[in-house]
Amino acid sequence: MRERINIAIVGFGNIGSYFYKILEKNKVNISTKTGKIPFVKYISARNINKKRQIKIPNSKWIKNPLKLSLMNDVDIIFELIGGSEGIAKKLVFAALRNKKHVITANKALMAKYGDQLAHVAEKNKVNLEYEASVAGGIPIIRSIKDGLIANKINKIYGILNGTTNFILSSMENSRKNFSDVVDKAKKLGFAESNPVSDLNGNDSAAKLRILSSIAFNKMISKNKILTEGIQNINLTDIFYAKELGYKIKLLSISEIKKKKLIERVHPCLIPNKSYLANINGVLNAIVIDGLPVGKSVLQGEGAGPGPTSSALISDLCSVLKGNIQYPFGVTASLRKKIEKFDISKHFCSSYLRIEVKDLPGVLSSITKIFANNKISIKNLIQNPYKKNKKASIIIITHENLEKNYNNLLLNLIRNKFVIKKPTFIRIEKI
Amino acid sequence: MRERINIAIVGFGNIGSYFYKILEKNKVNISTKTGKIPFVKYISARNINKKRQIKIPNSKWIKNPLKLSLMNDVDIIFELIGGSEGIAKKLVFAALRNKKHVITANKALMAKYGDQLAHVAEKNKVNLEYEASVAGGIPIIRSIKDGLIANKINKIYGILNGTTNFILSSMENSRKNFSDVVDKAKKLGFAESNPVSDLNGNDSAAKLRILSSIAFNKMISKNKILTEGIQNINLTDIFYAKELGYKIKLLSISEIKKKKLIERVHPCLIPNKSYLANINGVLNAIVIDGLPVGKSVLQGEGAGPGPTSSALISDLCSVLKGNIQYPFGVTASLRKKIEKFDISKHFCSSYLRIEVKDLPGVLSSITKIFANNKISIKNLIQNPYKKNKKASIIIITHENLEKNYNNLLLNLIRNKFVIKKPTFIRIEKI
Repeated sequence: MRERINIAIVGFGNIGSYFYKILEKNKVNISTKTGKIPFVKYISARNINKKRQIKIPNSKWIKNPLKLSLMNDVDIIFELIGGSEGIAKKLVFAALRNKKHVITANKALMAKYGDQLAHVAEKNKVNLEYEASVAGGIPIIRSIKDGLIANKINKIYGILNGTTNFILSSMENSRKNFSDVVDKAKKLGFAESNPVSDLNGNDSAAKLRILSSIAFNKMISKNKILTEGIQNINLTDIFYAKELGYKIKLLSISEIKKKKLIERVHPCLIPNKSYLANINGVLNAIVIDGLPVGKSVLQGEGAGPGPTSSALISDLCSVLKGNIQYPFGVTASLRKKIEKFDISKHFCSSYLRIEVKDLPGVLSSITKIFANNKISIKNLIQNPYKKNKKASIIIITHENLEKNYNNLLLNLIRNKFVIKKPTFIRIEKI
Repeated sequence: MRERINIAIVGFGNIGSYFYKILEKNKVNISTKTGKIPFVKYISARNINKKRQIKIPNSKWIKNPLKLSLMNDVDIIFELIGGSEGIAKKLVFAALRNKKHVITANKALMAKYGDQLAHVAEKNKVNLEYEASVAGGIPIIRSIKDGLIANKINKIYGILNGTTNFILSSMENSRKNFSDVVDKAKKLGFAESNPVSDLNGNDSAAKLRILSSIAFNKMISKNKILTEGIQNINLTDIFYAKELGYKIKLLSISEIKKKKLIERVHPCLIPNKSYLANINGVLNAIVIDGLPVGKSVLQGEGAGPGPTSSALISDLCSVLKGNIQYPFGVTASLRKKIEKFDISKHFCSSYLRIEVKDLPGVLSSITKIFANNKISIKNLIQNPYKKNKKASIIIITHENLEKNYNNLLLNLIRNKFVIKKPTFIRIEKI
């Protein structure tokens, strides 16, 4: 007779209820592959009385999820609430302390408290699994921890946020501007009603913190990482970029440079023939550059009930197989601390769109600022608007230091011809 | 004190010696992650006295590798000899019977004897790992077995042979013909001195058998699978395809159609904007279409010492972690047998290049054969050669049955205007 393993699901919205359905459907399959029978014993939701498509027996509902961590008939807790604080945090800490395995899709929680949680899990010899927290449809965490375990990873980068990628792709395809496309994304369910943390890059940054800690065998960085979103990307930028042979993508990049760590999330111009330039819509894609493997690429849907459930069940199977694993691949004491690379020394070429008054002397005044900051110009397009005596100046620079760009931008803003803060986008060699 | 695990490496050529180097270099890392110390106790090679870059202590060399399976101080045997018969087969069977874990890169052996070997491994409670046998740099086997475990996979397909992909890409880029490019590939080390099994599709077919057995939870098919290579692809085909919006790729495709299995390896015309069309050079790429995950894509280098060593070490770590796993994810008795789909009922559109005598009536004669076989023509290009009264007729057909194409080809060969066997390439919707 196979052993029954009792499961509690906390958080029963879109993701939780879909996951429950998929789990019930795959019970036999999972049982065959793991030798254990997963049984959903308890479910907790903010609103138990909400109308749902699936019928849940009354006996399964539990009002206070925090009680679950003390119950003897609970083996595994699925935390699907979200957020780095509040109930999610309390629940996961309490569960691990009480020797319950925890499976979570919560990137904010993992990015903020992952190290402490891993420590508690390790001490209590239970699993803390979080494959669903980064790029659900892509088994990226497992691939780094197991499939690519032999590799010394130098760089891990990619598109970690489907919402912003959908928005950038749609702007290009539909020639509609940012806010129209954001509305469309909301209607299609590709953006949340409040998509701020997607748009400003914070969502990607949380995922990047998790990935780079596994890839580089290090503690989760507490550094303030360079995080810029796509809110200021204009339709004109997308089309100028295209004209110049580039696409604009919100990339998350983590790499070791001179033995130091540089993590950054920002829009990038990348060559339009490159692999990542052709990842469109809600897709996510991650490139792992390691030795001896070379470049490994994984691509798939990043979010949504299907991909997330796929990840949750892979975590479940791992727990059911009875493998107690260190949450970050190695024991906490062996995870390194890596010094932060001084971002002001980051070196790249860049794209700038500068909106100016179209008056005599403007070009010489602007280009002089570049010269003063020792930034040399590779391409320049000046595009006057006929109506209002304004013009756009588009500039691609040669490679230079981040700190010089910062000064350049300060100088540009102060210039009498410049109408508003220029758009500055780094060009990434990939 | 960590336990030491004794390893024997059998086969010490290009791959074996590189793997040894990487293993020695990563010893501490592996030990940290698995809790065990891997120690290379024995090495066996066809020619022990061969000059090598690495120095191997005499005490490690063993002449007769078959003895290893009986030795008490051997825990894991790496089989890196290759070939489905001979010593490789004897060694792996004997090792598993004598309760040694086996890690192999041998796709021919796994494709032919994988089921029997898995049975022996299971009976003796040891691991049989073979991640390196398919697309070394891509952790595909582990991803299907673990990361995507929740999914009902409908189709798995991709580019599984780097040599042929390099050749097709190079023909397009260099505008050189097949044999020149094959020579170049040999010089660069991207093709073996005898690349027949790469070129004729057999290498891809062996890998496909392995993948589809894991993806569909089934025994390895003994079916003769449709296997066509790239030997007959001509430079002109590549350029006509390009003109028509396609690229030619050697794809391996396995899918369930009407509850039956269809496995095939053949050149395909695919839309030149599709993902796989843009996988160039020696890269491999695999697409997994499953529920609930959607399409997951994995891409990386398929062969060579680096990627292969990466896969071998991931297998090693899995064994060191002490997880006894079923080699194909589930116990042998639960792996299904899936009936073979009748390939003559396969339905697709196609590309044909027909070399003809350029005489009056030729076009009407050729198109009549199409009409007689109820195959309707979508595009037709006729291209006369000025010099020799010959012409090429390029035809793209609407969708039709494989059996009708077979008849069509028979009829075409018999036609008095047709100079040689037409080139027939299936168009794949992807």
